[in-house]
Amino acid sequence: MLKGLMQDRPLLISSLIEHATKFHPAAGIVSRTAEGPIHRCTYADIGRRSKQLANALTALGVKMGDRIGTLAWNGYRHMELYFGVSGMGAVLHTINPRLFPEQIEYIANHAEDQYLFFDITFAPLVERLAPLMKTVKAFVAMTDRQNMPVSNIPNLVCYEELIAAQSDRFDWPVFDETSASSLCYTSGTTGNPKGVLYSHRSTVLHSYAVCAVDGLGISARESALLVVPMFHVNAWGMPYAGAMCGAKLVMPGPALDGKSVYELMRDEEVTVALGVPTVWLMLFNHVNTVNADPRKELRLENVVIGGAAASRAMIETFEQKFGAAVKHAWGMTEMSPIGTVCNYLPKHRDFGEDERIALQTKQGRAIFGVDMRITDDDGKVLPNDGCASGHLQVRGPWITSGYFKGDGGEILDVDGYFDTGDVATIDADGYMQITDRSKDIIKSGGEWISSIELENAAMGHPGIAEAAVIGVSHPKWQERPLLVVVKKEGAELTRDDVLAFLSDKVAKWWIPDDVAFVEQLPHTATGKLQKMTLRGMFKNYRLPME
Amino acid sequence: MLKGLMQDRPLLISSLIEHATKFHPAAGIVSRTAEGPIHRCTYADIGRRSKQLANALTALGVKMGDRIGTLAWNGYRHMELYFGVSGMGAVLHTINPRLFPEQIEYIANHAEDQYLFFDITFAPLVERLAPLMKTVKAFVAMTDRQNMPVSNIPNLVCYEELIAAQSDRFDWPVFDETSASSLCYTSGTTGNPKGVLYSHRSTVLHSYAVCAVDGLGISARESALLVVPMFHVNAWGMPYAGAMCGAKLVMPGPALDGKSVYELMRDEEVTVALGVPTVWLMLFNHVNTVNADPRKELRLENVVIGGAAASRAMIETFEQKFGAAVKHAWGMTEMSPIGTVCNYLPKHRDFGEDERIALQTKQGRAIFGVDMRITDDDGKVLPNDGCASGHLQVRGPWITSGYFKGDGGEILDVDGYFDTGDVATIDADGYMQITDRSKDIIKSGGEWISSIELENAAMGHPGIAEAAVIGVSHPKWQERPLLVVVKKEGAELTRDDVLAFLSDKVAKWWIPDDVAFVEQLPHTATGKLQKMTLRGMFKNYRLPME
Repeated sequence: MLKGLMQDRPLLISSLIEHATKFHPAAGIVSRTAEGPIHRCTYADIGRRSKQLANALTALGVKMGDRIGTLAWNGYRHMELYFGVSGMGAVLHTINPRLFPEQIEYIANHAEDQYLFFDITFAPLVERLAPLMKTVKAFVAMTDRQNMPVSNIPNLVCYEELIAAQSDRFDWPVFDETSASSLCYTSGTTGNPKGVLYSHRSTVLHSYAVCAVDGLGISARESALLVVPMFHVNAWGMPYAGAMCGAKLVMPGPALDGKSVYELMRDEEVTVALGVPTVWLMLFNHVNTVNADPRKELRLENVVIGGAAASRAMIETFEQKFGAAVKHAWGMTEMSPIGTVCNYLPKHRDFGEDERIALQTKQGRAIFGVDMRITDDDGKVLPNDGCASGHLQVRGPWITSGYFKGDGGEILDVDGYFDTGDVATIDADGYMQITDRSKDIIKSGGEWISSIELENAAMGHPGIAEAAVIGVSHPKWQERPLLVVVKKEGAELTRDDVLAFLSDKVAKWWIPDDVAFVEQLPHTATGKLQKMTLRGMFKNYRLPME
Repeated sequence: MLKGLMQDRPLLISSLIEHATKFHPAAGIVSRTAEGPIHRCTYADIGRRSKQLANALTALGVKMGDRIGTLAWNGYRHMELYFGVSGMGAVLHTINPRLFPEQIEYIANHAEDQYLFFDITFAPLVERLAPLMKTVKAFVAMTDRQNMPVSNIPNLVCYEELIAAQSDRFDWPVFDETSASSLCYTSGTTGNPKGVLYSHRSTVLHSYAVCAVDGLGISARESALLVVPMFHVNAWGMPYAGAMCGAKLVMPGPALDGKSVYELMRDEEVTVALGVPTVWLMLFNHVNTVNADPRKELRLENVVIGGAAASRAMIETFEQKFGAAVKHAWGMTEMSPIGTVCNYLPKHRDFGEDERIALQTKQGRAIFGVDMRITDDDGKVLPNDGCASGHLQVRGPWITSGYFKGDGGEILDVDGYFDTGDVATIDADGYMQITDRSKDIIKSGGEWISSIELENAAMGHPGIAEAAVIGVSHPKWQERPLLVVVKKEGAELTRDDVLAFLSDKVAKWWIPDDVAFVEQLPHTATGKLQKMTLRGMFKNYRLPME
C-alpha cells in the first residue's frame, strides 16, 4: 500500500475546544442556569474551565474509558463536562432525567458510572437514587457553595470548588480517534435501555455534517438556541459543532416554557433554534397568549425540527408568523443523531408556498456520511422512486455498530446496514419521508397500510383529541386497521361519523375496519405513544366481519 | 482502550461518487470541451463512466498505488478520472500543462506515471514529450474516435473506445483511508518541483470543509463554476465536494477568456465561481468592453478568490457591478489546499461598506482541520493580536507531512507544524492576513518590512506598470528595501517622484533607499514574480548612503 503523505492527526473532541479557544475565543455561551440567573461566558472560558475539570478528574483517579454520568440541563457547566470528560479520554454518559427512576438506576449501574454530575434541580432524584448507584464514588452538584442543595446525598461535592482547586493548564492526551467519547442510552418502548457508545471520530465527523450548508448549516454567524437537551443525543451534536465553527450557543437550562424560550430568542438575537415539536407548541401558545409579534421582535431565520415529524401547520406557523424557515431533520440516538435534513434544490426555487411546504414535511436528504436504502420484508432493495416504501436502513461512520456491552447482539446485516425500525420512501432526488414505524405498519393482504397517515387523517376531525391506529388480526387479510380514539371533551362522535370523515382522505382499502373509543392512550415517560401496550389491550379484539 | 461502538467505514473517494450517484443522480455536470461543444451529463453518468474507466484500468494492469498522469482542462472526462483512478486505489497525478516542458518531463518521470491521459489541446506537447516519459505505457487522448489527434504519439489510445469496451459494474475496493489518492507537484520558484501526495482521508475531510458554511459554503443549491483548474490542487477540492453535496458543476475547459467565462456564468445560472485574480481581470475587461450588466444578466452570488491576494478594487467590482460577495480564501498545494476563508461574524453585520471590504481583503479564518500559528525567527509563538506578524505555520489532517519520495527531507517541526513560507498576522477573532513571503520580507535593524505592502503602495502610482521590492544588504541595518520599477509606456518618472509618492503611504523607515528602473521583471512559467532571480540581478547593488 502506498500511504498518502498527509499529517497523521487524529480527530479528537479536545481538538474542537482547542480550535474554539484559539480561533473563536470571544464567541459567547449564554446559559439560563438551574440556579436561576442568566450566565455569560465564552469558548475561551469553556476551554479554560474544561481543563480545570480534566485536572480535577485526574486527581479523582478517573482513567481513560471510565464513564462519568450527568443529570443536567443545557448550560455552560454541562458543556465543560462535554469537553473536559471526553477530552481527557473518559466517557461522558449523559442520562435523560425524564426516564423513570428505575430506568436511571439501571442505566447508571449498567454504564458503571464512576462519578455523577447533576444540576441542583435533580438533587431530590439523586438523593433517592444514590444508594442504588453501586459504582458511583461521589456525586458532584453542578453549582457553587452558596447554592449547594441541602440533602442527604452521600459523598456530595461542589463543582465550583472541585475545579477551583485546579490549574487551567492541561495537555489533552492524544489517542486513537476510534476511542469511546460518550454514551447515551436509547429509551426504547420495551425492555431495558441500550447504550450507544460514540467515538471521537464519529463525533468530529458528525460535527462537519452539522456545519455543512446542506446539514444544519451552523456557522460563526449564528446565535443558536439549543432547546434540544444535552442529555438527549448530545443536543444533536450542537455543542461540538458550535466549537467547530464558533457559533454563539444559547442554553435554556430547565426553563423550556414558551415565555422563557421566547425571551431568550429575543434577548440573545437567536438566528437558529433547534428542538422537538412539543416545545414549539408551547412557544406558539405563549406567542398567541401575549399576542407577540415574532417577525418584529426576533431575528429568527431557521428552526431545526426533529425527534418527531413536524406538521404542515407547524411549518406554516414558523414561516408566516415568525418569518423563519423550518429545516426538517431526521435521525436517532443510534445515528449521533443526524441522518437527513430537508433543504431545497435549485429546481424548487420557483415552487409556490404550498408545494414548498409540502416538500418541507419530508425528512429530507442524506448528508454525506449517511448511506441509506429501503428494503422489503425479504431484504430486497427497493427503488428510490418516491412510491415504494420499505424498511429504512442506514450505514456510515457515525452510526452504531452495536450496543454497549453487546446488548441486543449483532445488529448489522451482511452489508453493514442498521435497520432504523422506520418505514420510509425515498424519491429520485433523494428526499426521504418516514411513513411509519416497521412494527406499527399494518400488513393487509401483502400490502402495507401506514398507521401514521391514518392517524394524521383522523386527527383532522374536530371532535378527536388523540388517535392511534393498530393492526388487529384478521382471518382473510392477516391484519386490518383498528382506529382507537380519544374524543375531545364534550364531543359527540360515532364510529360511522369517523369512518365517513375518513372516506375521502385515504384509499378505500385503508379505511379502518372499526373504531374504538377510549378515555386515554398509553404513553412512555418521554411522552411517546406506547403502541405495544395498546396492541396488548386490543389483543383479543374482534373486528366486525363484512 | 475502550473503543467506541461506531461503524468502521473508511473515508474513501469512491464513497463520494457512490453517494452522488445514489442521492444526487440528476445534478448536472456541464463542460465546455476541448473539442469545442458544451457537454451535459449528471453525477449518475460520471458514476457509471468512472466505473467503466476503473474496469479499463484494471484490464490494463493498473494496480493499487500506481500513478496515472493527466494533462487536462476542467471537464467531465477529467472528473471521471478523479473518481475512477482514485476509486480503484490508483493515484491520480494531475500535471500542470503550464509548466515548462522540461518540468513536465521531470514530473512524469519522478512520479513514474504508468499511463498519461490528455486533452487533445495538448497533443503537440505530448508528442514532443512522449519519448522522454520513461514509465508511460500508453497515452490516452480524452476524446472520441472522430476527434482523435493526428500525431506521432506512440501507443495512442482513444478514451471513449477504452471505456466503451467495459462494463459499468465495478465494486469499488475497500482499503485503508490513509492510502494515497492523488498527487500534485508544487511549482516552486527554484529547484525541481516536489510532489504532494494526498490521501483518501485527507480528501474527504477537506471536502467537508469546502461544504461548511464557514468554508466555501458549497451545497446542492449551487451552480458552481470551476475556473480554478483541475490540474492545480484538485480545483480547490471542488470535484470531490461537489459529489459530496450534489452541487451542479460548470467546467470551462480551455476557454478561460472573459467572454467564454461570462457566457457560461449566464447560461448555466452560475451562483458561485472560483478562481484566481488573473481570470477575474479578464472577466472584468470583457464586461467593460461589451458594456454588459452582470447584476441583471447573472445569478452570481459568491466569488471565491484564492491563489493570490484579491485586491480591494476587485472585491468592490464584484460587489458593486456583479452584486456578488467575495469570499477571500487562502491555502496552498501542501494544504489540499484550503486553509482559511474570509467570512463575516455577527459583529460585522452593522459595518459600513468600507469597513466590510477592508475586512474582506484579509485571508480569513481557519476552518476546523487547520490549526495555525505565527512565530518569530526563533520559533517563539507570537500572539493573535492583529499586530504581531510572523512565520505562518500550519498543521492538520489535510496538510502534507513530507514530499513524495522524501524530497526536501523532514519538513515538520517538533510540534508537527509545517512552515508555509508566508508571513502573516492573526487578529483576536482569528482573521489571518498575509503580509509577505518569509523569503521576501526585508529585515531592517531587527524589524520587518513587508515587500508586498511597499509594492502595493508603489503600484498606486499612475506611471508604474509593475513594481517589486527586494532587500539589499546594508552595512548598518543589515537590509534595506530597493524598489524595482517597470514604467508604464510613455511615463516620465524619477527616483524622487516615486519616493515622494510613497512618503505619505508607508512608515518613514519603510521608504525604500533607492529605486531602480528596469524594462521588465522576471516571472515563472505560471506567471509568478521570481524574486530570487531579481535578488540575483541586484546582488551587488550599492545603495546610496546617507
